Amino acid sequence: MKYNVTPTDREIHKAATERTTALAMPYRAMGEINTLSEKLCAIQGTLKPQVDKRGLFIMAGDHGICAEGVSMHPQEITMILIQTMLLGISSVCVYAKHANTKVFLADMGVLGDVAVPANATTTFYDRKIARGTKNFAHEPAMTREEAERSIEIGFQLATAAIKEHNLNLIAVGEMGIGNTTPSSAIAAVYTALSVEELVGRGAGLDDDGVNRKINAVKAGLALHNPQANDPIGVLASVGGFDIGGMAGVILAAATAKIPVVLDGFISTAAAVIANTIAPNAHEYMIAGHESYEVGHKHLLKMLGLSPLLQLGMRLGEGTGAVCAIPLVEFAAATIQEIVTLEDAAV
Amino acid sequence: MKYNVTPTDREIHKAATERTTALAMPYRAMGEINTLSEKLCAIQGTLKPQVDKRGLFIMAGDHGICAEGVSMHPQEITMILIQTMLLGISSVCVYAKHANTKVFLADMGVLGDVAVPANATTTFYDRKIARGTKNFAHEPAMTREEAERSIEIGFQLATAAIKEHNLNLIAVGEMGIGNTTPSSAIAAVYTALSVEELVGRGAGLDDDGVNRKINAVKAGLALHNPQANDPIGVLASVGGFDIGGMAGVILAAATAKIPVVLDGFISTAAAVIANTIAPNAHEYMIAGHESYEVGHKHLLKMLGLSPLLQLGMRLGEGTGAVCAIPLVEFAAATIQEIVTLEDAAV
Repeated sequence: MKYNVTPTDREIHKAATERTTALAMPYRAMGEINTLSEKLCAIQGTLKPQVDKRGLFIMAGDHGICAEGVSMHPQEITMILIQTMLLGISSVCVYAKHANTKVFLADMGVLGDVAVPANATTTFYDRKIARGTKNFAHEPAMTREEAERSIEIGFQLATAAIKEHNLNLIAVGEMGIGNTTPSSAIAAVYTALSVEELVGRGAGLDDDGVNRKINAVKAGLALHNPQANDPIGVLASVGGFDIGGMAGVILAAATAKIPVVLDGFISTAAAVIANTIAPNAHEYMIAGHESYEVGHKHLLKMLGLSPLLQLGMRLGEGTGAVCAIPLVEFAAATIQEIVTLEDAAV
Repeated sequence: MKYNVTPTDREIHKAATERTTALAMPYRAMGEINTLSEKLCAIQGTLKPQVDKRGLFIMAGDHGICAEGVSMHPQEITMILIQTMLLGISSVCVYAKHANTKVFLADMGVLGDVAVPANATTTFYDRKIARGTKNFAHEPAMTREEAERSIEIGFQLATAAIKEHNLNLIAVGEMGIGNTTPSSAIAAVYTALSVEELVGRGAGLDDDGVNRKINAVKAGLALHNPQANDPIGVLASVGGFDIGGMAGVILAAATAKIPVVLDGFISTAAAVIANTIAPNAHEYMIAGHESYEVGHKHLLKMLGLSPLLQLGMRLGEGTGAVCAIPLVEFAAATIQEIVTLEDAAV
């Protein structure tokens, strides 16, 4: 496979753990912040990890599975929210401004044509692969070639943006009505859990909607029989372009040895795809939060990730990832700015 | 009682809840961040809550109960850490810098004389009531007059600092070797739980130390028999000056209608004292985190507070409060900067 993700730096991790122990605080008294400090060091290969140049990559795509009635919102909402993102007034843009994070938005395959307004504040990439995926309950969401391309596009644009803006902290988010459904299907492939356990209410489905969603996922899995050891096949079977794009962004971050903060269920489904392609990739991931969406915690556990926030959030767009960024900043500060007991005593 | 804390604004809370529902996001999709948004509105009596002018008040005091071997650290550590706080290099000062929070430190009653270095960056208040509390296993930690004075000092200095610096968000922290022991005693008075359930390892006690701590708390409670409806009596019985000072800071924030972010077990013990004095005070409190210290979650529950962070932290100083401040900022932004669906569709 062409994505080459090496393990994080074990020696630096050991040195970071020693520094944590030496800090002027009771033993590991900052708990998971200490653990995150050490992870940042191991990822960047330094005891002075930098996380001040931040980029959020939002990958947008529409989903043919919406024809099965799996979302409470019409697909037009995708385009409306893309406009608010371009103008910097969507939820995640508000949080990104407060978290000093640049926003990059890619049309990976939404239904409509994105018109970028003259006063857009968000960097936009037109990388439309198709006008939405196909309805995976009846046919593959995309071709294998499109699946590979979606990952490659995410990888290339993130790699270029990392270089251009010297990014040292990446977050991923998405926009695409219906995208918890392919995420549930991916989760069903990669966990031993039933579809019922992995299908949630998304943006607020009622019981009938949840049943339609369960049936759609089951139909797709039965029809395509995707195999866990074939991540491209899984992506081609159930989609989507947004998920493939995020997998590519995650692989770009891991390849560049930059920590990548995941958002909720959908970005974590992308992370599972990325980690299957490059099994060291999870070492570069930070779980921003645990979503209210039921399947999320199972995917986090599978990746060995512990969420920084557990606030019942389920907005998507990257909001949970961005809201966790200040904690990543605190973790980076912990390891390099807090004095050791030895220094303090002088 | 002279501390007059009125309820938060019910009408504004209702209006804030309506605005949350109207936002361009699925219904309450930011979970507890939405809830916090509304609380900030109710506290400040506006749909545009401001939380940009932040002050952390660290109240320091020593504890006579240390003679019972309840802490793994010698009391000299209190003075060493006060020096690092004055120089802005203690853990909490590092986090406060990243969270744009001014640090105010008060000697409420430490053993030694605090020498403020010429290059101090932290505002210091010399308000020493005594050179540490008495050993509450054998005698009251302080007099009733001293208990009242500790609260009044915290109230007065926070009230003055709020006015001088136009503070609109307060956090509380403490420094004082041994201060989880009086906190456990206070928790035992105010909950139906056993002393065993409320005594934790503090900064890292071994099993023998925990047993000494349990015995010390039991001895103090048996000797003084403090009553929950007499918060001054509770404070006088078991201490400490740091806890009384924090209770005063909390009452000042609530009186000024400013949200106050609590830290861990000790500050929450102070919050219980404050809320007993002024039963509306809890409406102004935000639980920054849930500490690793076992008793904390019980006190939070008693106050009806849900912690923003659950990261196994147990450092004190106000670190858990300060690390939660960015989430308070996100909550304030949510209610006033995210567009409504109606506006987004235009």
